[in-house]
Amino acid sequence: METATITLAHGAGGRASDELIRSVVLPALGGASDMTLCDAALISNPGERIAFTTDGFTVTPLFFPGGNIGRLAVFGTVNDLAMVGAVPRYLALSIIAEEGLPMESLRSVLREVGNAAREASVRIVTGDTKVVGSGAVDKLFLTTAGIGTVGGDVPLLSPDQACPGDVVLVSGTMGDHGVAVLSAREGLSFTPQITSDCAPLAHLAGVLLAAAPSLRCMRDPTRGGLASVLNEFARAADAGFEIQEDAVPVRREVAALSEILGLDPLYLANEGKLVAVVGPRDADRALSALRAHPLGLEARAIGTVNADHRGLVVMRTGIGTRRIVEYPTGELLPRIC
Amino acid sequence: METATITLAHGAGGRASDELIRSVVLPALGGASDMTLCDAALISNPGERIAFTTDGFTVTPLFFPGGNIGRLAVFGTVNDLAMVGAVPRYLALSIIAEEGLPMESLRSVLREVGNAAREASVRIVTGDTKVVGSGAVDKLFLTTAGIGTVGGDVPLLSPDQACPGDVVLVSGTMGDHGVAVLSAREGLSFTPQITSDCAPLAHLAGVLLAAAPSLRCMRDPTRGGLASVLNEFARAADAGFEIQEDAVPVRREVAALSEILGLDPLYLANEGKLVAVVGPRDADRALSALRAHPLGLEARAIGTVNADHRGLVVMRTGIGTRRIVEYPTGELLPRIC
Repeated sequence: METATITLAHGAGGRASDELIRSVVLPALGGASDMTLCDAALISNPGERIAFTTDGFTVTPLFFPGGNIGRLAVFGTVNDLAMVGAVPRYLALSIIAEEGLPMESLRSVLREVGNAAREASVRIVTGDTKVVGSGAVDKLFLTTAGIGTVGGDVPLLSPDQACPGDVVLVSGTMGDHGVAVLSAREGLSFTPQITSDCAPLAHLAGVLLAAAPSLRCMRDPTRGGLASVLNEFARAADAGFEIQEDAVPVRREVAALSEILGLDPLYLANEGKLVAVVGPRDADRALSALRAHPLGLEARAIGTVNADHRGLVVMRTGIGTRRIVEYPTGELLPRIC
Repeated sequence: METATITLAHGAGGRASDELIRSVVLPALGGASDMTLCDAALISNPGERIAFTTDGFTVTPLFFPGGNIGRLAVFGTVNDLAMVGAVPRYLALSIIAEEGLPMESLRSVLREVGNAAREASVRIVTGDTKVVGSGAVDKLFLTTAGIGTVGGDVPLLSPDQACPGDVVLVSGTMGDHGVAVLSAREGLSFTPQITSDCAPLAHLAGVLLAAAPSLRCMRDPTRGGLASVLNEFARAADAGFEIQEDAVPVRREVAALSEILGLDPLYLANEGKLVAVVGPRDADRALSALRAHPLGLEARAIGTVNADHRGLVVMRTGIGTRRIVEYPTGELLPRIC
């Protein structure tokens, strides 16, 4: 018999746990799940090279304009695989739910997990569900792990391969996810509504790989935003990164809200964008390829790699001055993903 | 500069996050980690068949006699892989920490993760760290995902292959982990102290696989204990499972405490034991093999599979009566793993 809320019995490993999996989890995930009731899934012929990743998701609220924790949990892990050039294949889903969580909340999140998995062409093959007492977790955390396969022709992508003269690309506007979650959390509303960019990037990444043999590295700028990714790249490459303020695409409403709240879109999280470094000869072709893709319509070349100010990111402003884009140090927006 | 406690900045994806990973996480994990600072790890030649699993760990307290959340997080996932006949190879570690957690708590847990990984011969290749505000999680949750390789000669292990006449084995005493955690939580102390059985089972499982070609299935009886595993087996096999009460090994002190607290060791969690079903011809050899292993010294044959009372588990008591071992329904002991 189904209860209206999650109870500790649902986490006890007995009948109630079994019923939760059979009557709520698996049906909600729908056709996206091959999950056996066994504790581990077997995968045949995974390929010569595989990519492996994990990510925990603690976003609050669970649903926000343009997305929810279920979609983030799928796309976040899919995107980490895509950024190393892998084709995402299999997901493992770990659920930690709070006693008293409405069953309908769990069900609706898991439906989104299932839909997102179908959209991203990944199969959820194994999982785990824990329930903790009221107050021991805030509603619901998801952790996903993923396995992707890496084609034999995919080069090793790593920011330490970036070198002076390379071009820095972004696939679209910065800061949408961060502002969407913040608005939802603070009860702010805008017209037009700012929605999360939450999307699976594997196809876009594949297009970029095919278009740019000199692709050095890709990264999805989530927590810490573009500023964090560029600083990591600059350190790893031991090179300077110089970007043009005017070239960084930011939606007008995101820019306006950021200004009001004292936030900088460069530091805000994205969940459906990538930053890439490519050799100069491939830059135009890479940019055209991104722009021809629905997820890259607003792609831009935003700067270059140089031999000056090694390890630092510098932004040239509209009025011609230059300022250092610091590695984020503060707490920014907690529980943004 | 290291702070004495975890702060939200440690979860923000910037400098503090980076420093936490470099100066606390990686050193504490020690040689057990190949973790790159990249979001996904690449694995070459993983093998023809791989096993994939995940498990979340929410145990309270973080340290208890005989173990801690770090060892559980490694061994729990290693054991899920071992139970399908895989050799555990790679782990992904996801950390969700509460703001204000003493840095030393995180560090000591991660040292245990590192030690446990070395003991179990697995490499931690990727990870993720999130920090949530005070009150949004109780101290520290870990989620591990694991990949194991499955040898070409390993049969498909599944409880639906159990058939009448088969023999049920357990590798040792039941209920130690559950009682150890409960005692720690309730501040109960005993002489001798009851300690968790928390241990990696892959080597023991390999020994059993080699000794018993007719091995049908193995399972580690964690949440819900032996009662839960046998009920799952009975349902999957559509067969009856009959066990002898006298044959189930239970430490005297575990039995005594269970009696006082109204608990049944059959329903208590174990973290270093396995339950196996083998064909009758292999039963003696399997039992000898288990007993020759340090983790199986107290292995016993506890019962058989039969064609009666399909889907049910029945226990024959010391005085000759029979009672049904119900699938656990209640909340048992939350946050036991």
